Amino acid sequence: MSEYVAPIKDMQFVLRELAGLDEVAALPGCDDVSPDLVEAILEEAAKFAGGVLSPLNATGDREGSRLDGNAVTTPKGWKDAYRQFAESGWTAVAAEPEHGGQGLPTLLSTTLNEMWKASNMAFSLCPMLTNGAIEAIRSRGSDALKAIFLDKMVAGEWTGTMNLTEPQAGSDLAAVRARAEPQADGTYRVFGQKIFITYGEHDLTPNIVHLVLARLPEAPEGVKGISLFVVPKFLVNADGSLGARNDVRCVSLEHKLGIHASPTCVMAYGDEGGAVGYLVGQPHHGLAIMFIMMNAARFAVGLEGVALAERAWQRALQFSRERIQGYDPAEKAGARVPIIRHPDVQRMLMLMKSQTEAMRALAYVVAGATDKAERHPDELTRTRAQGFVDLMIPIVKGWSTETSIEVTSLGVQVHGGMGYIEETGAAQYLRDARITTIYEGTTAIQANDFIGRKIARDKGAAIGLVLAEMREVAAHCTVIGGENFGRVGASLNAGANALASSVVWLLRTFPELPGEAHASAVPLMRLAGIVFGGWQLARAALAAHRRIGAGDADKHFLEAKIITARFYADHVLSQADGLAHCVINGASVTLASGLLDE
Amino acid sequence: MSEYVAPIKDMQFVLRELAGLDEVAALPGCDDVSPDLVEAILEEAAKFAGGVLSPLNATGDREGSRLDGNAVTTPKGWKDAYRQFAESGWTAVAAEPEHGGQGLPTLLSTTLNEMWKASNMAFSLCPMLTNGAIEAIRSRGSDALKAIFLDKMVAGEWTGTMNLTEPQAGSDLAAVRARAEPQADGTYRVFGQKIFITYGEHDLTPNIVHLVLARLPEAPEGVKGISLFVVPKFLVNADGSLGARNDVRCVSLEHKLGIHASPTCVMAYGDEGGAVGYLVGQPHHGLAIMFIMMNAARFAVGLEGVALAERAWQRALQFSRERIQGYDPAEKAGARVPIIRHPDVQRMLMLMKSQTEAMRALAYVVAGATDKAERHPDELTRTRAQGFVDLMIPIVKGWSTETSIEVTSLGVQVHGGMGYIEETGAAQYLRDARITTIYEGTTAIQANDFIGRKIARDKGAAIGLVLAEMREVAAHCTVIGGENFGRVGASLNAGANALASSVVWLLRTFPELPGEAHASAVPLMRLAGIVFGGWQLARAALAAHRRIGAGDADKHFLEAKIITARFYADHVLSQADGLAHCVINGASVTLASGLLDE
Repeated sequence: MSEYVAPIKDMQFVLRELAGLDEVAALPGCDDVSPDLVEAILEEAAKFAGGVLSPLNATGDREGSRLDGNAVTTPKGWKDAYRQFAESGWTAVAAEPEHGGQGLPTLLSTTLNEMWKASNMAFSLCPMLTNGAIEAIRSRGSDALKAIFLDKMVAGEWTGTMNLTEPQAGSDLAAVRARAEPQADGTYRVFGQKIFITYGEHDLTPNIVHLVLARLPEAPEGVKGISLFVVPKFLVNADGSLGARNDVRCVSLEHKLGIHASPTCVMAYGDEGGAVGYLVGQPHHGLAIMFIMMNAARFAVGLEGVALAERAWQRALQFSRERIQGYDPAEKAGARVPIIRHPDVQRMLMLMKSQTEAMRALAYVVAGATDKAERHPDELTRTRAQGFVDLMIPIVKGWSTETSIEVTSLGVQVHGGMGYIEETGAAQYLRDARITTIYEGTTAIQANDFIGRKIARDKGAAIGLVLAEMREVAAHCTVIGGENFGRVGASLNAGANALASSVVWLLRTFPELPGEAHASAVPLMRLAGIVFGGWQLARAALAAHRRIGAGDADKHFLEAKIITARFYADHVLSQADGLAHCVINGASVTLASGLLDE
Repeated sequence: MSEYVAPIKDMQFVLRELAGLDEVAALPGCDDVSPDLVEAILEEAAKFAGGVLSPLNATGDREGSRLDGNAVTTPKGWKDAYRQFAESGWTAVAAEPEHGGQGLPTLLSTTLNEMWKASNMAFSLCPMLTNGAIEAIRSRGSDALKAIFLDKMVAGEWTGTMNLTEPQAGSDLAAVRARAEPQADGTYRVFGQKIFITYGEHDLTPNIVHLVLARLPEAPEGVKGISLFVVPKFLVNADGSLGARNDVRCVSLEHKLGIHASPTCVMAYGDEGGAVGYLVGQPHHGLAIMFIMMNAARFAVGLEGVALAERAWQRALQFSRERIQGYDPAEKAGARVPIIRHPDVQRMLMLMKSQTEAMRALAYVVAGATDKAERHPDELTRTRAQGFVDLMIPIVKGWSTETSIEVTSLGVQVHGGMGYIEETGAAQYLRDARITTIYEGTTAIQANDFIGRKIARDKGAAIGLVLAEMREVAAHCTVIGGENFGRVGASLNAGANALASSVVWLLRTFPELPGEAHASAVPLMRLAGIVFGGWQLARAALAAHRRIGAGDADKHFLEAKIITARFYADHVLSQADGLAHCVINGASVTLASGLLDE
């Protein structure tokens, strides 16, 4: 089995040509982000991902994490890999320097995160959740909480978790029932059961810092009565050493379709008198704090889609070059050929490659905009960048994850019968990918966010700017013309038109017939994702064209960028009109299905 | 967890209104097929599927079959279920009466097979493979072989297997290396290793009858040098009792993504001097015999797609009615609602339901045509029916299985986080479905068969007849008009046009640029499947319209048929133009991808 090789060349191309690395490097606080640093950090990370994390991916899947009593044992090698990960400073990449972090821009940490996720998604979930917990404490925690927890978490000495879900409260967080009782000393006692808690218990670090949603006594009903608490596994003494064991325990592990090595825990709080917790931020504002982190979390899960698609593509490409079967259809005789010579295998591989590159490009462009939104000195630029990020987050999450299921499933198909055998490895990526459209908000939740808060609320202003930009890119392609750019330009233009018509329909429908708007939300989000992806590949083709014109020596790579954009135009963007039809004409029949009457 | 409930009402509707049960019942040899018999047999089978097979499906998946030495133990309850299955006569349904079979028409056995596959796909593979082996011996075996094996196999006392694949010979059977040496007594000694042998070893019956592809000495290279042999696990004495253990053993079981209970064996032939085998048919004609069975086998796997989609739909529907989460988007307040009230859940459910019904309808129509092709007294009618069957087999196989992956994956999505937990059961259907696009010829192989042998060879004659029929149905819908039939007619007509343009392109391209034709084969097959499915749902809507007009009391069911056709028109058929674009314009860029140069 081959190990993951980080696609550094494509990453660098996207960072520089599409996502504005130079602009990001010029932002305040990004002075260290030199080309040399970027190259060095990508190479180091690639080495760690390919050399340490990737070899544990399949073995971790087979072994899984297991529960003994209330203790979780991670698979063989996990503990050592985590220690190296923390010691190498990878847990600290994105955090603020004042807490020991390296303060790298999101654009760069995104690139590294793709590597962790692609090489070993189950492993990567631990630092991902920890980052969310760090952000919650940093942004709304008291100075005391920050002093106790942040340095250790940034250094990777302790990890963090997010405790939202309960059996009756999945997507519907208003239904949370866990409760917290105030104590005389200013702390709280937390009671309740939480499910689906990723790395809720493990053996990687001596302490685990849980962030828990719970209700205070007499809290309002619904989402406006939920508060956020820090509940550490071990209480922390004044000198920073570990104190008493807190009243929180893992009572069960889920048996899941994928990410077997990542322990998904049922957590029991307060079975023996109450778990000691500390309030984060204001009472009843827990969900608002969660929402602050939600953009980052949804973006991170979208990146899982990119990463798993990349991993599946690498393995399928390699297999298709090695597996000898049948003859070239143009020759019919002669020697047997590697299956990559079969036209449909090329088609499948190009579907994998083109969609993966489109998703990566869009994700990095959004990451670059995140840095601008946070750090740019000009307020208008910050506001616009944030508007773009807000618009795109549900697309990066919803579209990339849905597409990753298609791409990883194609990866199985390229392998034929071997793809169905677990030892081959292709099936794991499909199993792992299958969670990404569900957690951190299902695809429908992303789509509802997209049509409601992101399009209807500003009356299409933000998406209108993107549509205008796409049309400019399409026009630029059309001017260059020829077989490739002509098709790319025409398809992107047609895609933009299909999306624009759908947005017009939505703006009219959303206030009047919200049910119909919601019935078309997922098709509209899928249409938007496909068109935005085509936009990024067209930009990539234009950049490649420019560089070829400027005499760049890497002609093969650059020409592939142009061909990939053309393939995507004919095979993926070509779905745009059909999706627009479905958005505009398909909603009423969905609601009239009669399913409710049966 | 809910058990499978056979959708007898929809099955009966399709049998009678779409697949021509009355015509089939009027064919020679089908005198027994009365409405009462059909009703009785469907109800008995439904009882067995829901009561015996369905409860073993999840437990069989969890336990799996296991290997001890060379012996395979099937999961708990399997042996008893198999005994009941055979004793109830279900193994004998389709076989010829002269061998103890019931000689039921294919249309009826198809309906039963859907039930076995939907209730327990891993179980159903054993009788399915046995049927293939029965058919091989019946059609080309000597009288002696028939006498020894057929009655026992039809009665379910012994099972059968098909041994084609070897490590280097998957889709490419020309690469088969297993060999057979003639002996003085007219038997052969068979040597070699076969992989992916379904139920190659098990504990359900005392004997297993392997059909094995192997090469005779000095056989020609390639597919024209492969012969077919019967190799029983135990030799059979003259009196029919079991004799010596033959030199064939299961040496390993595969660890697969799904169908865990179905033992997928590596079989070693001749490690201790040669396995005794008996030639079936003429030397070097083994593959031709396999091709005789291939239509039936491919159809059966296509039916697995229908069955798993049905099972996933049933479970998702039930869950969506029970799971309470969130509010009605049109109300936003009030009580929490079952998730079926959410528009996107309705959309997902309708995608599942409409595509499942479309696939079932097409499969049964093809089954009915199979009976006509075999039994109709008029030769021209037989020939035409066979032409239709030949055209449709790769669609039933390729389109239904690909669609079953989409439908079972939607089934997971409807369940949200619970869908990712194995105990819920939804994930198993996706895992089980994932093999169906691979075995019995991958999707690409179906598509290549479709464009080459089924369209290009007769210059589009057979598909031209179907296109004409579809346009008539579309016109009929348009005449009825109104919101539902208007859309159904327009979409079907547009779909037929998209398919016709693609066929015209194919007929021009296939002889001149075979590589391009093959690059567009899968998109063309998908387009055809989607349009044929729409055709069948339009026919169903017309039949429902007729019955409502005639005062049929089951108005709710019949109106749902019309709405389902309309939903499919707007949500699925609407992809037709985009796919035609991909077929006609997408091939050249696939072949120019540059993947081969890297």
